[in-house]
Amino acid sequence: MRIKIINPNTTQSMTDKIGACARAVARPGTEIVAVSPAMGPVSIESHYDEALAVPGLLQEIAKGEREEGIDAYVIACFGDPGLKAARELARGPVIGIAEAAMHLASMIGTRFSVVTTLARTIGQAEHLAEAYGMDRFCARVRACELPVLELEEPGSQARERIAAECRRALDEDGSDVIVLGCAGMADLCEHLSHLLGVPVIDGVAAATQLAESLVTLGLRTSKRGELARPVPKPYTGALAGFALGDNSGHAPHEEIR
Amino acid sequence: MRIKIINPNTTQSMTDKIGACARAVARPGTEIVAVSPAMGPVSIESHYDEALAVPGLLQEIAKGEREEGIDAYVIACFGDPGLKAARELARGPVIGIAEAAMHLASMIGTRFSVVTTLARTIGQAEHLAEAYGMDRFCARVRACELPVLELEEPGSQARERIAAECRRALDEDGSDVIVLGCAGMADLCEHLSHLLGVPVIDGVAAATQLAESLVTLGLRTSKRGELARPVPKPYTGALAGFALGDNSGHAPHEEIR
Amino acid sequence: MRIKIINPNTTQSMTDKIGACARAVARPGTEIVAVSPAMGPVSIESHYDEALAVPGLLQEIAKGEREEGIDAYVIACFGDPGLKAARELARGPVIGIAEAAMHLASMIGTRFSVVTTLARTIGQAEHLAEAYGMDRFCARVRACELPVLELEEPGSQARERIAAECRRALDEDGSDVIVLGCAGMADLCEHLSHLLGVPVIDGVAAATQLAESLVTLGLRTSKRGELARPVPKPYTGALAGFALGDNSGHAPHEEIR
Amino acid sequence: MRIKIINPNTTQSMTDKIGACARAVARPGTEIVAVSPAMGPVSIESHYDEALAVPGLLQEIAKGEREEGIDAYVIACFGDPGLKAARELARGPVIGIAEAAMHLASMIGTRFSVVTTLARTIGQAEHLAEAYGMDRFCARVRACELPVLELEEPGSQARERIAAECRRALDEDGSDVIVLGCAGMADLCEHLSHLLGVPVIDGVAAATQLAESLVTLGLRTSKRGELARPVPKPYTGALAGFALGDNSGHAPHEEIR
Amino acid sequence: MRIKIINPNTTQSMTDKIGACARAVARPGTEIVAVSPAMGPVSIESHYDEALAVPGLLQEIAKGEREEGIDAYVIACFGDPGLKAARELARGPVIGIAEAAMHLASMIGTRFSVVTTLARTIGQAEHLAEAYGMDRFCARVRACELPVLELEEPGSQARERIAAECRRALDEDGSDVIVLGCAGMADLCEHLSHLLGVPVIDGVAAATQLAESLVTLGLRTSKRGELARPVPKPYTGALAGFALGDNSGHAPHEEIR
Amino acid sequence: MRIKIINPNTTQSMTDKIGACARAVARPGTEIVAVSPAMGPVSIESHYDEALAVPGLLQEIAKGEREEGIDAYVIACFGDPGLKAARELARGPVIGIAEAAMHLASMIGTRFSVVTTLARTIGQAEHLAEAYGMDRFCARVRACELPVLELEEPGSQARERIAAECRRALDEDGSDVIVLGCAGMADLCEHLSHLLGVPVIDGVAAATQLAESLVTLGLRTSKRGELARPVPKPYTGALAGFALGDNSGHAPHEEIR
Repeated sequence: MRIKIINPNTTQSMTDKIGACARAVARPGTEIVAVSPAMGPVSIESHYDEALAVPGLLQEIAKGEREEGIDAYVIACFGDPGLKAARELARGPVIGIAEAAMHLASMIGTRFSVVTTLARTIGQAEHLAEAYGMDRFCARVRACELPVLELEEPGSQARERIAAECRRALDEDGSDVIVLGCAGMADLCEHLSHLLGVPVIDGVAAATQLAESLVTLGLRTSKRGELARPVPKPYTGALAGFALGDNSGHAPHEEIR
Repeated sequence: MRIKIINPNTTQSMTDKIGACARAVARPGTEIVAVSPAMGPVSIESHYDEALAVPGLLQEIAKGEREEGIDAYVIACFGDPGLKAARELARGPVIGIAEAAMHLASMIGTRFSVVTTLARTIGQAEHLAEAYGMDRFCARVRACELPVLELEEPGSQARERIAAECRRALDEDGSDVIVLGCAGMADLCEHLSHLLGVPVIDGVAAATQLAESLVTLGLRTSKRGELARPVPKPYTGALAGFALGDNSGHAPHEEIR
Repeated sequence: MRIKIINPNTTQSMTDKIGACARAVARPGTEIVAVSPAMGPVSIESHYDEALAVPGLLQEIAKGEREEGIDAYVIACFGDPGLKAARELARGPVIGIAEAAMHLASMIGTRFSVVTTLARTIGQAEHLAEAYGMDRFCARVRACELPVLELEEPGSQARERIAAECRRALDEDGSDVIVLGCAGMADLCEHLSHLLGVPVIDGVAAATQLAESLVTLGLRTSKRGELARPVPKPYTGALAGFALGDNSGHAPHEEIR
Repeated sequence: MRIKIINPNTTQSMTDKIGACARAVARPGTEIVAVSPAMGPVSIESHYDEALAVPGLLQEIAKGEREEGIDAYVIACFGDPGLKAARELARGPVIGIAEAAMHLASMIGTRFSVVTTLARTIGQAEHLAEAYGMDRFCARVRACELPVLELEEPGSQARERIAAECRRALDEDGSDVIVLGCAGMADLCEHLSHLLGVPVIDGVAAATQLAESLVTLGLRTSKRGELARPVPKPYTGALAGFALGDNSGHAPHEEIR
Repeated sequence: MRIKIINPNTTQSMTDKIGACARAVARPGTEIVAVSPAMGPVSIESHYDEALAVPGLLQEIAKGEREEGIDAYVIACFGDPGLKAARELARGPVIGIAEAAMHLASMIGTRFSVVTTLARTIGQAEHLAEAYGMDRFCARVRACELPVLELEEPGSQARERIAAECRRALDEDGSDVIVLGCAGMADLCEHLSHLLGVPVIDGVAAATQLAESLVTLGLRTSKRGELARPVPKPYTGALAGFALGDNSGHAPHEEIR
Repeated sequence: MRIKIINPNTTQSMTDKIGACARAVARPGTEIVAVSPAMGPVSIESHYDEALAVPGLLQEIAKGEREEGIDAYVIACFGDPGLKAARELARGPVIGIAEAAMHLASMIGTRFSVVTTLARTIGQAEHLAEAYGMDRFCARVRACELPVLELEEPGSQARERIAAECRRALDEDGSDVIVLGCAGMADLCEHLSHLLGVPVIDGVAAATQLAESLVTLGLRTSKRGELARPVPKPYTGALAGFALGDNSGHAPHEEIR
């Protein structure tokens, strides 16, 4: 099967890391396609960044549907931007990494803490926990005040700061599982798990597994109701290319681009 | 004061109607600026449409901050798209019409029903009711299966179908207030209120009043925490123009465009 | 329009202050009538005080309906005593100051803290936050252990203690908005806002604005269902005068007094 | 022990019935004192009635504390008016009949329906269910549209209409327990229980038992925090007599009257 | 009446203590039958212990129904193990001690803290608080890290450690009532109540009173729906004796053993 | 890897079917071990049955840990009996089929309906939905009034009745996904999915996939806190063999049997 992992920011080094982490857990025979959108912010650290990451993300979903034969998608940003819009476009499943990590955390422990980057993104993580029904398992969302792109800098103290915040989570929150709150932390998961002695969950790997599972089970996004393919209509201005065609069958000439 | 009402879809006739409804309730001395974005869908009837209405909306907010001296904003689509991102950009208040209508409904009755256009948008209205804490007052969200742009067509049966759904709401939901679930219904509010004998709330008028109230009270969006101005950073591709400058003081040469 | 602000305690100096704060934000052409009831406690600091403030409050609502031509009412005590009973009596809107302040707080920030007088009133403020659906925005209700009437004493340290508690709220609660938890603090709002650098909301001003907004929008208390005018019936003993007449049309000779 | 049952309305025939129902379940050695207040409405069917039943109720609590040697109180109206204020005054426990009935219902079944008098009181019953944490057990609150005082009229169809509504509750709500939603229905409990074949709970009897249980266990209202005795202060006008004295020890000369 | 108190662990000294505490509050004429099951763990400190305490507990319920003429049951372990299964078997009421203590706590205060034994049991207490609707009153569940059987050792510091944790609860949680979180603490209730000056609730005594109250009121477990007697069917292996007979009338020869 | 699927009832034909359904979706290289316990009920249709299915289930978990080298477990009954106790015993993950099905349903749709066997089990399914945070996605739990073992009878109308109830769910509940509410329905999943045109989820297959995913990710049950291995202690009577040894390292001679 083909799983497309979309890093909604445009930083290629992060996309490469995310792709590698997904491949490391994917089943034999699964092809991982990891991409960044053609447009948007270099990192996602605000509602503004998140909103503007969505058009490029949706382009990649549309392209996946139109010409890449994708079976399932992973949205690899912990804010899970554009998840419902992506589900409307896609026939197969679409999984967010916050969604995947939180759900799995609830199955191997009783309370998890999320450790994320900037404090201003805590609200969005809390919002997602509620939207997924995972707030009852989420003891606390914690921030290291670490800008996302510092995770990409070799000499930064990112790893140490994240480890220190994880320890505080275990000491103060009564948590038994840690969820990493940024796709850019995917490569730290194994290290932190050994260091802390509790399960540490990276959403990229978690979502990859869930996407594969859903494809194996033959479960696709329900097209009955809210997640049905959007009604075609004109789009104007710089977004005119986002108009969907009238072919509910997703024919090859569909004009999404 | 200057209030900017942004209809996030690009249908000018609807924008004109919305502007007229806002002006009809605005205080003497308030200038209403009603606009559609330069890009995006002609109507908003899916998560996909909603996500793609946001870039144009944010352009209008940025323009309002940069060069129009706007005191407060109204987002005139019942899905309240981009509300938090808009609040990050704006110094003054930003009010969504679903937000405004639901809050006021909770103050003049005990249970309200929302009557909206297509059934597939019910989920978003329910989500907003929860996000605003208004789900405890919202008896039900109902749809007429009426496409948004039929509201703009003179000969359509839109008015009758909406009235019939409102009557069902009163009969079946135990509601004592009706909330109109689309900015395009703004001009039906008075008619329906007389017809039904209960308060009927149009979010455009409601949000206009709330925006004026907040400006009068000197209350602006809090810049401490989640709604602080986004961190400036590069944007790439077709969205490169959305990069914010480094001037936290919102100087006139800020490069949002 | 005429807005009647009822301070449900009988301390006239507080009523005067409340009236002044309301007038300071009211629109040109709005007449503010600020009163204390003819009977009841000098301050409201317990459920007992609150319950016994209600008869005098309802007398003032009835008088407003019968002979004063009032368009809307504000209940100017942060416990919002008698709100639903008042809504049953009134044709126009009735707004509580806790209600008004909390709703507006949710529109300009993401989390608010309430700073109130005595700790024993925290439970009531928390109850109201839940009843209004605002508990999801209310980070914490805090008390200064300041008796209400000390707010009226020129030499007291009230202002300093409130400011100190507000600072603790910002430091410890992760809040971005402060709500003042007593009508007697109305005059401190501007001072605290400048001092703290975040929005500070006084419920008296907030409720005045909301009342005006509802009147402008033509929105009155729904008389369909729970808030319909009470069924007339005999009252006995010292409360015999509270019996409502049988005139659902609120005729001038109605015997509420 | 002495249990005082206060029917907060002033209809003596209902008070007599309530007293008889309480005595029928009280333990040997328990004295039941059943009273109506000296002032207030003849029946409670609105928020207005409820608010104005409270002063007379509080007088009876104060008298019980001052001179009657009461061990516990029951508030015998399904709206549980003035419950928290009464708890502030009383040293012993105070139990509301809605509170008692709902709690016991949750222990002998999985879902209960409340059958009450007028539809306009449904909101208050739902509010109490939530305030007591019993909303998760409350399938539905149903009304017969039966004025309270018709329960006192020999020839009325009250019994039949209540039985019919109970049957609808069992058929439509999936309930396994019925809660009678008015103190005036206390005498119908046994009849309905036999008729319906499910447990039917009368709050008067339930509260009497709970009051006795708490007294036997030596459990009194906690005076640490919100339910501490109110701070003494002046009361004015017709309510001047409600001022509490400064004797936190509840001495015999306390001036409540 | 006959009340059977089942201590679901097999430590007889604890059963004796529990029986004595129940008898100390039971009404004249009530016979208390206090037993331990014939099989199971010596103490209950994990989900594993709890699950394996249930078969022995259900045997005792079945025996009570078959041959002992029991009117009501108390499950005397703070995890309330097997409560719903026991209710299916029993005709009369079955009350858990956590259930009883939490419900009564909500009637005499506004917030309670639970003080229990091992921290690993906190989750179960929190789960029960939610299941009973008492989470809104439960400020916090606290553990002393005291193994259950240390409560039975004369020279242990159990009493002091519990008292210290209760004091922390009052200081830090804003609670006004303490709930003892283990049946083995039943004998400490009076001592702690005097020491702390707030109501302290032992679930054994509380549940005994509630069981007596329900019997007095003629209220039995509803057999309509979820708590109906289980459908008879074969059981295999070591549990073959748990098969229920086909006599829905609970005839004397029923083969539960 | 080795996944052990435990059907907690003792009906071997159902265990065989469950094993086949798990094998049909398992990855190459995964060994599925499907068993029934040595003791317990032939079907699980009440809280009583469920409680008594747990000892046999825990024996199988203990055996899996002691001598079978199991990597993860699936509990194949829709009541997810003994889930937390099993997690205490197991080092690897343990997944319930209701848990698995509900979580996956939330990722491919917006609202699901559960279609189960007997109406008396609806309460348990609703309880699980809440415990997993999935109640916000669960539109309704529906029963066909079909005894579990009729699913094993070739000539029964089970398939038709289930299909009819699924259709009602889609028509009346606004659901877009169906969850099958019994392990015995596992073989109907594909048929129903084709028939209904919406995703239909069988928990056995879903849990098998999730178990494999967690093992692949190296995620095991957290042993920090509530799910740590139970404290060893004596067990008495017929359950003496369930006493756990003192070897926290799970040595081969551990005496669970």
